[in-house]
Order: sequence, then structure tokens, then C-alpha cells
Amino acid sequence: MAVFLLLNFVGMGARAEDGYWLWLRYDELPQEMRSQYRGQLRQIVLETEETPTVSVAARELSDGLSGLLGRNVPVSDEGARGAILLVTGEAASLYDLDLSDLGEDGYLLRTLTDGRRKLTVIAANEDDGLLYGVFHLLRLVQTGEDISDLNITSVPRIDIRVLNHWDNLDRTVERGYAGQSIWDWHKLPDYIDPRYTDYARANASIGINGTVLTNVNANATVLTPPYIEKVAAVADTMRPYGIQVYLTARFSAPIEIGGLETADPADPAVQAWWAGKADEIYRKIPDFGGFLVKADSEGQPGPHTYHRTHAEGANMLADAVAPHGGVVMWRAFVYSENNPVDRHMQAYDQFVPLDGKFRSNVIIQTKNGAIDFQPREPFHPLFGAMPETPLGMEFQITKEYLGFATHLAYLAPMWSEVLRADTFVKGEGSTVAKIIDGSLEGHEISAMAGVSNIGSDRNWTGSQFDQANWYAFGRLAWDPAAEPAEIAEDWVRMTFTGDDGAVGTILGMMMESREAVVNYMTPLGLGHLMGTGHHYGPAPWVSELGRPEWNPVYYHKADEDGIGFDRTKSGSNAVAQYSDAVAAEFADLEAVPEEYLLWFHHVSWDYEMPSGRTLWEELVHRYTEGVRTVSGWRGEWASLEGRIDEGRYRQVADFLRVQEKEARWWRDACLAYFMSLNGLDLPAGYAPPARTLDEYKAMVFPSAPGN
Amino acid sequence: MAVFLLLNFVGMGARAEDGYWLWLRYDELPQEMRSQYRGQLRQIVLETEETPTVSVAARELSDGLSGLLGRNVPVSDEGARGAILLVTGEAASLYDLDLSDLGEDGYLLRTLTDGRRKLTVIAANEDDGLLYGVFHLLRLVQTGEDISDLNITSVPRIDIRVLNHWDNLDRTVERGYAGQSIWDWHKLPDYIDPRYTDYARANASIGINGTVLTNVNANATVLTPPYIEKVAAVADTMRPYGIQVYLTARFSAPIEIGGLETADPADPAVQAWWAGKADEIYRKIPDFGGFLVKADSEGQPGPHTYHRTHAEGANMLADAVAPHGGVVMWRAFVYSENNPVDRHMQAYDQFVPLDGKFRSNVIIQTKNGAIDFQPREPFHPLFGAMPETPLGMEFQITKEYLGFATHLAYLAPMWSEVLRADTFVKGEGSTVAKIIDGSLEGHEISAMAGVSNIGSDRNWTGSQFDQANWYAFGRLAWDPAAEPAEIAEDWVRMTFTGDDGAVGTILGMMMESREAVVNYMTPLGLGHLMGTGHHYGPAPWVSELGRPEWNPVYYHKADEDGIGFDRTKSGSNAVAQYSDAVAAEFADLEAVPEEYLLWFHHVSWDYEMPSGRTLWEELVHRYTEGVRTVSGWRGEWASLEGRIDEGRYRQVADFLRVQEKEARWWRDACLAYFMSLNGLDLPAGYAPPARTLDEYKAMVFPSAPGN
Repeated sequence: MAVFLLLNFVGMGARAEDGYWLWLRYDELPQEMRSQYRGQLRQIVLETEETPTVSVAARELSDGLSGLLGRNVPVSDEGARGAILLVTGEAASLYDLDLSDLGEDGYLLRTLTDGRRKLTVIAANEDDGLLYGVFHLLRLVQTGEDISDLNITSVPRIDIRVLNHWDNLDRTVERGYAGQSIWDWHKLPDYIDPRYTDYARANASIGINGTVLTNVNANATVLTPPYIEKVAAVADTMRPYGIQVYLTARFSAPIEIGGLETADPADPAVQAWWAGKADEIYRKIPDFGGFLVKADSEGQPGPHTYHRTHAEGANMLADAVAPHGGVVMWRAFVYSENNPVDRHMQAYDQFVPLDGKFRSNVIIQTKNGAIDFQPREPFHPLFGAMPETPLGMEFQITKEYLGFATHLAYLAPMWSEVLRADTFVKGEGSTVAKIIDGSLEGHEISAMAGVSNIGSDRNWTGSQFDQANWYAFGRLAWDPAAEPAEIAEDWVRMTFTGDDGAVGTILGMMMESREAVVNYMTPLGLGHLMGTGHHYGPAPWVSELGRPEWNPVYYHKADEDGIGFDRTKSGSNAVAQYSDAVAAEFADLEAVPEEYLLWFHHVSWDYEMPSGRTLWEELVHRYTEGVRTVSGWRGEWASLEGRIDEGRYRQVADFLRVQEKEARWWRDACLAYFMSLNGLDLPAGYAPPARTLDEYKAMVFPSAPGN
Repeated sequence: MAVFLLLNFVGMGARAEDGYWLWLRYDELPQEMRSQYRGQLRQIVLETEETPTVSVAARELSDGLSGLLGRNVPVSDEGARGAILLVTGEAASLYDLDLSDLGEDGYLLRTLTDGRRKLTVIAANEDDGLLYGVFHLLRLVQTGEDISDLNITSVPRIDIRVLNHWDNLDRTVERGYAGQSIWDWHKLPDYIDPRYTDYARANASIGINGTVLTNVNANATVLTPPYIEKVAAVADTMRPYGIQVYLTARFSAPIEIGGLETADPADPAVQAWWAGKADEIYRKIPDFGGFLVKADSEGQPGPHTYHRTHAEGANMLADAVAPHGGVVMWRAFVYSENNPVDRHMQAYDQFVPLDGKFRSNVIIQTKNGAIDFQPREPFHPLFGAMPETPLGMEFQITKEYLGFATHLAYLAPMWSEVLRADTFVKGEGSTVAKIIDGSLEGHEISAMAGVSNIGSDRNWTGSQFDQANWYAFGRLAWDPAAEPAEIAEDWVRMTFTGDDGAVGTILGMMMESREAVVNYMTPLGLGHLMGTGHHYGPAPWVSELGRPEWNPVYYHKADEDGIGFDRTKSGSNAVAQYSDAVAAEFADLEAVPEEYLLWFHHVSWDYEMPSGRTLWEELVHRYTEGVRTVSGWRGEWASLEGRIDEGRYRQVADFLRVQEKEARWWRDACLAYFMSLNGLDLPAGYAPPARTLDEYKAMVFPSAPGN
């Protein structure tokens, strides 16, 4: 009864909060917070031409501040008291603001005092910068920051800050856990879902300036005229928000929709077809961003079919979009059907020899690690190994390997860990971030891509907390040095509550969460232990799939004596792909960071860890710690009941219950399996697996999403 | 810019109405409407045991009235002034109310006057009846009816009022145009989406008391233990709302999940397997409704594989669920792979000989017409032809053949047309309704099924107006004699507005809509002219599909001389399956109703119609009229701007634009094709098709949903 009535309540007339409004809620601030802004934020004055983007910026600022301050903050004609000035170009000189270092997307937030009058100025060279500045000012107010003496300059470190939608034309989403694709291809271009506009607003608010609408496992149909019309309609909606649309290009499209016999990049007819296709697209979408390509990987077509290199394939497409200012993002995620070499090494082996051979508008889009978005991987050895080529970062926002929609896992710490990793390729301080942003090697273009977790679910991302990953990706793409904890706090305050106690509780859970997932799924450098196909749940025992590197046993190599993948000289020697300093550290059993231990070394079960525990004891301890952490959150979250809205409180509470159950499942299934190999008992005080190994092996999940 | 800003507005902070709340909005009524209820609706008093269903009823009434009247209407302990009494069983005698004719689901709404005190009584034998009475009282208040002297008795004519979800376990929905399945099988049973409760509320509010969760093209997986757990969790949520859960039974399940060699219904092991499976289900779901089965049709497995009849197959399942009070709904929608007989006749041929051979808990679920949910079909000849067998009605709420989500087509007039059709099997007045409700032939059980149009879209049904079809289905299942216009008016007032002018406009559009669709798609008795597979758009030219009855040309039989399917003696003689009186009318070219002309007759293009036009001229006229009607709505709808909320106003306006475009496409493509056969010109004053026939033939729709 009780439970039922509660659900009933959540469901009904109350019109419960459901998370649709993300971090752009603009609900009225508490009186004490509002009062400090009253004098300073009375009206908005445009000292710039009113373009669509400026209209959007002014409207967002007016609507946002009106909601937050509980009184109308209009756009007016002249700067009376408490004016917020939106300034671009020439007008900046009136307030002698120096915009010379702001580039296209940067902005200034400045408080000017003119006698007893205060003016708040948002200034930028371009309209997009103005829009970003508006969202920054709104964030300061949403989070209750003091704005009485602003002096902020913000310029993005990365040029192309782009979402990758692995969305198919039938609205299924590969590795999507938030419902269908938001792109309703069937109704486009005739029906423009208002949600597209909210999508654009949310992305602009975090600095994202590009979106790849379609799956990297591409369908050439999207390049046919009716679909180009549909894409153009989406692009028209994105444009005022400074967001460029990109598409995935299926390498075999000239055959599939072009009627050619070949897709050989050296064939003039193929080159002409792509050039013509690019012209056709740019006629409809003048600001089209370009193509993202997955080629010669996991069954996708590519230049190798014609004995051409990735460079020859990428350059052909680059030449097609170059006249229009487009770019090609060519993925480095490649491994071959029949290459026996450690999968970890194959991308490096294929791409390093091509360094310097790519056109200037090609970016090699590289995953953070060399395998595939595992809960923890060392940075990809390609970073720093192709100094003459811009490398773009590919992070996965959708939680393919971190618990799908239900698990709380805040990913900014994981991404930041990689961005801050030091490659030492040009000595200490040669961080991955400096390679991505182009500063280390002086590249003209830079890019960071996030594989989207967005879908048609009302809350956009399938859970309340997964919104934070979308948010944090945008903030890190703008500033790779940003602090994950600061990003999280902004998000919590804008999304849930300004109550400091509650913020502290939620922030604590978020900041623990990624490590907790690592612990209950793949501690100490383990990886790729998940179920086959859908990647749901643990299946470390899987050993009979068609290709060796499809099997979890390929990655953990556990046996009676020990566990781990020897990537030192005595093994695959993948460590040699890193700079000498890094290679030396990773190759040394004593020096390798504990969290990468089993990634690079095969270690005996009785190996003594720094903790004094044996490896086996440490492994059991970590798995158990992961579960314990999640259990703790349930109590912490329960303390927030009544302090955040019922609708979101309830969903998170339910999801934490699921996460605890699944964390225990991961721990128990993995330990049951490893015990079946090493014959060891659990250390004293650790609970045995709840079920037998055979029971875990027998579980099937026909409805697991995203596959 | 203008358009863009509008979208922006719809999308943003305004938190636009999106239709989620259906007809259960409970927004405060205008002052003048509220005042009349103040005195009479002050508090709720329970004179019945507080069961989960009574709690739900009391809470719904309290929340609903509190919202509508803008003041708290609490549940209190004793009947002071202005009390609403919820009364069951014994307590009824206190107010000497006679509940003897109400059955399980019926209820009384009565105003009792005790001196100057008025009491409003909702009385029923069972809790479910009380819940239905509560929703009736709420409807009266939502629509501003006078309740000062209530004397209403309402008893459903049909026992089983059930939705059929053609939902797959991967959340795709066959013929679904509203997103994914709302059943999140992956997260069940651990996560209960609050939406399940709103689904239950909406269905209970219109008298629906059953739901089949899974597709008739069934997957045996749903009968495995983990899925039975999931189904039980849904059933627990539905139970307080008086809704029973049913599943589709895949006939070959004993082989696929039972490990048997056969699914032969005569095999004792098979019988035992189904009996055991039923026991297993009922242990988890004591009020499980039973099975819906599609067998030996369109590739589905069935008893014919074992040379058994539909009766033998149905009876085996009926015996399995009978001890638990379950039923089997066995579909009559069958036609054979290789039967050359007119498809129209095959269900009759197969089922009539089995009349009297089915167990008493079997219902033969029969589509309204003999082909397949076309915009207009004559009633199915099975109605009245199986007097010893309860026939259930199967209507299709989802608009597979009536324009998917975007076309406005209010279906109650179509359904009512069939329910009111007179079979004459027992003389005049032998209506289909009387056969369905069991009164004509004195059956114990009766059922009406609606193929659901519900999905995960925020507005539930893919469009605002498609909600009306869900609503109307429930109302007609309760009372097949209900007036479609009255149902529509209730829905409009509850869903959109109480403004009489606006109500009139919207009601006018709704009541014209089904005929408009018939006109622009399949006028004068044409049918099955749609695109292959996805069924989107016109394709009357398709002639080369694997089986004759898959091709539109099979149905229209148009040639140089004429058009239409001769189902008289000179043709398939399908008319002979109807009673003599009906057969005589349908067989007579002069007597057949114009709307069925080409359904039963092949008619020459120059045949003179009652209008004085030739058939060709009449066909062109009807197609053109259909388009004209839709064009007219756009202006009528525009007149409502500002009189209904912006969010829903805009979506409907956009969808009407799509409908007009597609109506013209249907007209032009069909006329272009028929002209290619008959070589006739268009009559003077009629616009030629916008494109060439080849252009229409070349159109493809890779993203068309629901296939």
C-alpha cells in the first residue's frame, strides 16, 4: 500500500519534476540570494546588431533572470541603472574593452562602475561568444555567486566541441540508454520538434558548438537528397545557438547510393562523387561542419579494401569539404579482423607511420584509452606519438561500460585523469590536454568529441545524474583544466538545490562514484569483463567468441597462478608505444601505478601489494569496497528526502537500489569466477558470492538496451 | 526568425503544455463554473472498507476536485454538509440504494437531499465500480455539468475492456507511432516507472479493465521466470486501478522455452506444460487475465502445424487457465499462405465450422472488418455467423492505415458505424453491438479489444488528437451505443478548453476527420492502397509482392475499363457470407451503400453515380474533397491561437500542415496512377497531380516507424 500510494503521488497531479529542464531551470531564487542581484540586473541593453544569435542570447538572459529574480528583466533600448550590456566589435571600444585575445568564441564579463552606477558588460568579438557569456552570467546567478565586481575572461582551449550521436535512422541508439534518438527522421523536415531547440539551448549553455547527428556505424541513406533536407532543417534550428551539424560518412556510399562500382579513394570518379556530394550538402547547409568517419574497423568499409591507407581515405574526404571550410574527423579506433598483435597496439601501429600525411583539415579522433572506454584505462599511446597531426579526443558520455542509465557514475574525474596525464613526449608537462588543444605541437585545429548519452527520455539522459556527464563534457571541452569537483558543484546547484548541506552530500556521492564503479567492476587495472553484445553485467568467464579479443579472458588472462595482461617486454610490449619515461614506469612492477597494475602485468595471486594484502586479498577488498560505497549512498540520499523535489528524489533512490544490487552482482560473479580458477578462499570477514558461478553464467538479458 | 523565436518560446522556460496529463488535467475551473459546485463538493466520506482501490478512488477524487475547485476537498470521517459519500455493499441500504443491477463494475451517482443538506453518493457493489463512479463525477465537474440533482446509473455492456499492446520486448512497437513501448522490460521489476501509474489512472478513468502487455506476434521469452517477475511488478501497479494484465502466448513456446519436441495441443506433455506455466504465472499474478493468441496467421505458429483445429489449440490453453478463472482471446485474423480464396472470406471459412466447439472461457477476437483495419470496411461477416461462440471485437486505435501520428482522424465514428451495423441474423436489430455484448445470443462473457496507440512519447499517443481515440475506445467499450460526438465533446472540454466556441470548432474538425481520411485515401469502398511494409503513404500500383493479397492491385483491381473487387456471385461471392438481407443489399449494384461500392463491385469508370457524376468524376471529387476538408481545418485551427495553450496549439498546427501535404500526396498519387490505367482526363476544375506517377513510385521512406 505505502509504496503504491507513493508511486501514485509521484505519478499524479503534483506534476512532479522529471528533470526535463536540466540545469536551465531558472526557478525563483530564495529571497536572500535574490536581493544581492536586484540592483545590478534590471534590464538588458543590446550594443550589437540583433542577429538570430543575439536574439537568442537576449531572450535567454531575459527569461532566465526574470525567472531567477522573480521579476521581469526586459530588453530595453538604453542603458539606465542596473543595465546588462551585450557588446560586440566596435562598441567595445566605447568601454575600452580589449577583445583582441578572445578569438571567435571567447567573452568578457566585466562590471563597470560609472559613479554610483554599475553596468554589467558581456563582450565578445562574435555573437557566439556573447551567447556563451550570457550563459556564464546566468550560471553565476543560478549558483548564487557574487557578481558585484566581475572581471572574467573566458576563451575555449578547444575549437571543435562536439557531441557524437550514435543514433540510427530508425531512431535506435547504439549504446543508448535514454530511449530513442531525439532525431525524428520520419517527421523531418516538416515537423520540427521543439525539443531540438531545448537541445540546442542546453548545449550552447556549456559551450558545445557541434553535433554529429548520426552513428559512426554509418548508413549512407543520410547522404541522399531527402535526408539532406532533413539534416538542413535540424541545422537551421541549431544555427542560432552556434552549433554546427556534422554527419558520419559511410566510406562505401559512392557504391551504395552513388551507383559507382568502387569507393577507391584514388579513383577520380569517387573523388568527384564526394566533391559533388559535399557541394550538394553545403548548398543546403552553408555552415555544415564536415564528416566523422569510422573506417576499416569492426566491419566498416574503408580504404584498406582498395589497398589505400587511412590517410588516402581521409584526404579524399578532406579535399571534398575543404573548399567549404569543412573538416574530417577520422577515428583511430581500428583493430583488424585477423591481426594477432595485442589489440592495445594496433591503432598506434596503423596510424603513427601516417603522421604528417594527412591534410590540414583532418583530425584523428582518438579514444581516451587504447581499448574501449573501460571504467579505467591508461591514456592512449597515440597521444604524443603523431606530432605532425592534430589528434582529437573521443570520450564516451553514454555509460556503455559504467552501468548504463541506472548507475551513478560521474565521469569528469575519469576524463580529467586522462587530460592531465603526462605523456613526457616533450619532457615533463607534455600532458594529453596540451596535445589535444594543439598547444604542445602548435596545431591550427583542435577537437574534443563526446559520445552522446542523450535520448527521447523525458530526463534526456536516462537518469538524473547522467545529465551531469553531458554537462561536464561541455565544460571540460571548453577548459580541459577545469576541476571536476567545481563543475559538479555548479551542476548540483543549478540542477537540484542551493542548500549547502544537500549540495555537499550530492557532491560527495558524485566524486566517489567513478572509483566505486571501477572497484565493483574492474579494479586494479582489469578491463573488458562485461557481458557479450549488450555489455550488461559481468561475464569474465566468456572465452569462446569468434575472435580472441572479443573475449573477456583475452583481457584478464586469469589462471590458477595469477591474473593480468603482460604488456611488458616479456609480453606484448605495448608499453614500448609510450615515451621512455612513461614506458619505464608502466613496465616496472614496483613503479606502475596500482590502478594500472593488471593492465600491464600478469601478477601472481599471492603478490604482496603496498597495502600488505596479497593481490587476491586486495582484489576482494576492492570489489567489496565498491559495493560498500554504493550501499552508503543509499542512506546519504535518503537524508535528502523532502529537501529536493519528490519526483527526482524517488527516481534516484530507485536507481541507487538497482545500482547496489548490480554492484553486488558484479562483485559476486567476478569473485566466484576468479575463485574457480585460483581455488583460493575469501579472506576472513568477506561475504561469499550470493549465488553459484553456474547461476551467474546462466543469466540472460534479452531486453538489455543499446546493442 | 519569427518561426525560430516561436519554437524557442515553445521549447523554453514557459514549460509549455505537452499533453502528458491527457484528459485528467484538473486545472482550476473558471470562477463561474466553480461556484455551482462549492456547496455540494466539500469533503469525501468513505462508507466502505479502505482497500487499495478505495484509497486510489478517494485520492483521485480529492486531488481532482481540489484542483478543479481551487480549494482543498479532503477525505474526512463523517458526512457533514456537502459530503460526497463513497458507498459499497451493506452501507447502501442506509440510503436505500438498490445496487442489484449494477454487477461488478456498475455504479450509481445520486444526489440525496436531507432537509436543506445535499449529499452526493457514489455507490457500487465492488471497489472497481466505485472508482469508475468517481471518474464519472470528476468528468461531470470537468465539463461543467449540473450535479445538483444526480440520478445516474451506469453499467458496462462489455465485461472485458482491454488494450492490446503490440509491444515487443526490445521496446519497439509494431505499428506504434508514439515512441517506444512504455514497458521498460530491462529495468523491470526493480524500477517501476511512475508512468505506469498514470497509465493505469487514465485507463481506469475510461473504464478499461485489462491490458495485454505484449505483441500478438509473440515472443515466448515473456513466459520465462525472469519475465513473469517483470509482468508481476506491472500487475501489482495495475491492480488497485482494477486493471488485469494479460499476455500473448506464442503457440510454439513449449518447444522454444519448454524443451519439448512438439507443441501439439493433443500431446499430454504439451498440455501439462501449459497447465504448469499457467500455475506458475498465477502464483505470481493471482488476478492474471489470460492469454491472447495469434495462431496460424502471417507466419505465426499454431495448431495447424499438427493438423489440429483452432478450437483444439484454443481449448488446450483455455483448460490451462480455466482453473484460475482466466480466459483465452483467440484471434480470428487468419489467412493462409496459399489459399487462393478471396482473403475476405478465409476467416469465416475457417471459424464458422468450429462454432460450438470452443471452451466457455474462449473468446474469438474478431477485427471490425474482414481485411485489416482499413479506413472503411463493412462489418466482418463472422459477426452473427457463430451464434454459439462469444465473439470479441478488435478495433485498432493506433492509426496504421489512417495517417500514423500526424493525421487528425477521430475514430469513434468508424467504430460506432460497425457497432451499429445490423447483421439481420435474427431479423432487424441484430446489431454487431448486440453480438459483441452477448445479448443477442445470450453469452456469459464479452470483450472489446483496442490495439493500443500508446508509447513513450511525452503526449502518450504521438499526437494530441490521438489521445481522443484512446479515450473514445474506453467509452465505447463501456457503452457501445454511446454517441461519438458526445464522447468527443467530453474529451475536448476535459483536454483542451471549456470555451464553447473553441469546443465547437474542435468538435467540428474531429467529427469530419474520419470521412476526410477515407476520401483522400480510399473513397467509395476502396482499401489497402498503402505503401508496402511500413504502410506509409499511397502505393496503389504495387503488384509484384510474393503473395497476391499483399498487393494493392489485388484489392482495387483497377484496369482500363473500371475499378473495384467483385465480391458478388459473378466474383468471389463473399457477400454470401452475410445474412440474406445484408447479402442482397451488398450484392445489388443499385442498393449497395455508396461507401461500400468498390468493396463489393467492379464498376466501369463511366458508371453513373447518384450524384450524376460518373464513377471517375466521383472518385476525383471525393479525393479532392478530402484534401479540401483538411485545408479548411488549418484555418479553423489558426482561429484558436491564444485560446488554447501555445505548446499544444503549435504541435497541432504543425501536424495539420503535414496532414494537408500528405492528403494531397495521397490524392495526387492515386489519381495519377488511376489515370495511367483509364487514360481519362481530370474533370474540369480539378487540379492535376503535382508530380508524375514515376516520381510518386520512386519515393522511399527508410525511417517510417512501426514496421
